[in-house]
Amino acid sequence: MHKVAVVGVGCTKVGELWDKSLKDLVVESATKALNDAGIEKVDVVYVGNAYSQILQSQGNLGSLIVDSLGFNGIPAISIEAADSSGSLAFHEAYKAVRLGLANSVLVVGVEKMSDSTPEEVAKALMACEDQDYVAFTGVTQAGLHALVLRLYMERFKVKHEDIAMFTVKAHKNSLNNPYAQFKNPLSVEDVLKSPILADPLRLLEYTAIADGSAALVLCSLEEAKKIASKPVVKVLGSASATDKFYLPERIESLTFNATVKAAKKAFQEAKISINKVDFIETHDNSTIMGVISIEDLGFTKKGEGAAFIAEEEIPVNTMGGSKGRGHPIGATGVYQLVEAVWQLRGEAGKNQVKGAKIGLTHILTGIGNLASVNILGCL
Amino acid sequence: MHKVAVVGVGCTKVGELWDKSLKDLVVESATKALNDAGIEKVDVVYVGNAYSQILQSQGNLGSLIVDSLGFNGIPAISIEAADSSGSLAFHEAYKAVRLGLANSVLVVGVEKMSDSTPEEVAKALMACEDQDYVAFTGVTQAGLHALVLRLYMERFKVKHEDIAMFTVKAHKNSLNNPYAQFKNPLSVEDVLKSPILADPLRLLEYTAIADGSAALVLCSLEEAKKIASKPVVKVLGSASATDKFYLPERIESLTFNATVKAAKKAFQEAKISINKVDFIETHDNSTIMGVISIEDLGFTKKGEGAAFIAEEEIPVNTMGGSKGRGHPIGATGVYQLVEAVWQLRGEAGKNQVKGAKIGLTHILTGIGNLASVNILGCL
Repeated sequence: MHKVAVVGVGCTKVGELWDKSLKDLVVESATKALNDAGIEKVDVVYVGNAYSQILQSQGNLGSLIVDSLGFNGIPAISIEAADSSGSLAFHEAYKAVRLGLANSVLVVGVEKMSDSTPEEVAKALMACEDQDYVAFTGVTQAGLHALVLRLYMERFKVKHEDIAMFTVKAHKNSLNNPYAQFKNPLSVEDVLKSPILADPLRLLEYTAIADGSAALVLCSLEEAKKIASKPVVKVLGSASATDKFYLPERIESLTFNATVKAAKKAFQEAKISINKVDFIETHDNSTIMGVISIEDLGFTKKGEGAAFIAEEEIPVNTMGGSKGRGHPIGATGVYQLVEAVWQLRGEAGKNQVKGAKIGLTHILTGIGNLASVNILGCL
Repeated sequence: MHKVAVVGVGCTKVGELWDKSLKDLVVESATKALNDAGIEKVDVVYVGNAYSQILQSQGNLGSLIVDSLGFNGIPAISIEAADSSGSLAFHEAYKAVRLGLANSVLVVGVEKMSDSTPEEVAKALMACEDQDYVAFTGVTQAGLHALVLRLYMERFKVKHEDIAMFTVKAHKNSLNNPYAQFKNPLSVEDVLKSPILADPLRLLEYTAIADGSAALVLCSLEEAKKIASKPVVKVLGSASATDKFYLPERIESLTFNATVKAAKKAFQEAKISINKVDFIETHDNSTIMGVISIEDLGFTKKGEGAAFIAEEEIPVNTMGGSKGRGHPIGATGVYQLVEAVWQLRGEAGKNQVKGAKIGLTHILTGIGNLASVNILGCL
């Protein structure tokens, strides 16, 4: 079994990219990743995308993308798990390289949302929830996040201001990310004065509609050492897990067991302890999801996630996370990995975490029914 | 690296199953496969589905299905490649077992089409084609198949009667398949007198709207030998490939290179020659696709696919294929594998191929932009 390394990364700017199609976005990110790796072709392409079937009526993305990139004939696998799509695509690609079935693999995450109306996007975002038991009520994702936020504040006696701090930190970090959707600093007051999406969740606590694509190239560690002109980033662990699909069926609503399980498995595989992690790229499609995720990953106790982030015990979402960098849903998992590689190579610019050797990425689907955790290292 | 075996199979009846939801279908097929394997749980679930996002607004199927089956917490991966979805899900599951990442894996293919209008289904079926260059013209899948059929008949001087024979054979075989959608024998005359879908393609040359789910359980060969109460079916080869996405961009319109490449790789991996294959479960969402596929797989020369099937040189689509058994799109690849296992175990009833030791399954997406080939054996 091979060890696996990331040898190339690339991404598009995140935002409302009116002049770029889904294929344009993929070609841009993939070309950057291939150039970064210094290779011209790969053996397989794995695609992570959440909503192209709903928003563009476009399915069969794997084959479409292989052709758009001019890679005639190679296998393509397209994976969908809403927000986790890109991270699961990475996970499957990682397996293919470990097994030696492919010398080099391209992973592409892509989402094109801005051509659709906000109503169409809101409906698409609910596709990851059970249509028979949840979506039919008309509740939106923001509505579900609001329920969790309210319960969290009551249970743990945490103030909304402290949770809103998540957005402030995100926008502070995205200021220095050339690919970020948002470049405006925000105060806690700005966040809490913004319109209510679903009480108590505010507009500025939630991610915006965005287009974007991120890509990376994987190959075996042996091969990476031969071809790499930059520090070689290893994949130390990659795992995913699920949870009861329907939030009210879970015994505990404020701990997402999918995260707990995926993190445990990823750390076991990486054979490192959590205190070795130098920075965290965590799921944060709303402030409360970011706070809960930091706790579930094991970095701090329940109820203390917001304080952990405020005190910057470990750098979190160093390039702005989903709130600041933007959240092109199926691509976000790959953006996290691309940003982690920048940190580990020392290419993260003004937001560089000094001496970063190990980084963790984490993403959730919906209200935590699926989670994926990856641990990368440059040792 | 482990060798891999199929230790359990199951499926629902194919048809317009008005009283069954997508989840009901999955639970039925998966429960049958698990019971057949004699095991209660698996380590991972791979899901193949084409159109639940479009037809049911339901995404994130992996996690949903894990929960529906009561497998709380295990990883789930959902793969989409239109008709090839189920076969690619099998391919990824196969990799996971080979790598030793999972002891046992459940593969489920599912599609629920009958709750949607024919117009909705026709639109969904075009999701696997390029929205920017093909689907926007308003052409349907049947329209594309008709173009290929006309060109084929002209180029190879093959009569429509000979191609229509594919349907006749399919309905003859599905008569004895208890899970088949169609149980009515048809003559060539019936087929050619049926309404025109898109000239020259007739209604009875094309598959119908159908619901269905098929499932199978994979584990390592060592484990299979321990637990199996039935003949152990080995996975000898599993491969996929792509082609130029847009039919007119290909140099050759009547040879689908994705099939040629995938078959070549699968045979190389299986280390067997094509004359060892005892039966073929091939793609046949229209008569012409079945005929071309037999040729592209290498069983006969170009222009002779129809004659090959008429002469029954090797049994083809022994349980009725997509035309007779039915074509619940994302599930069909798994149905083919389930039927191949029945043949190899000697459980195929009246349609049993005597002494069958090696079977091949093949499926295409759209007009051949992606193909997947699997070779199973009971040696």
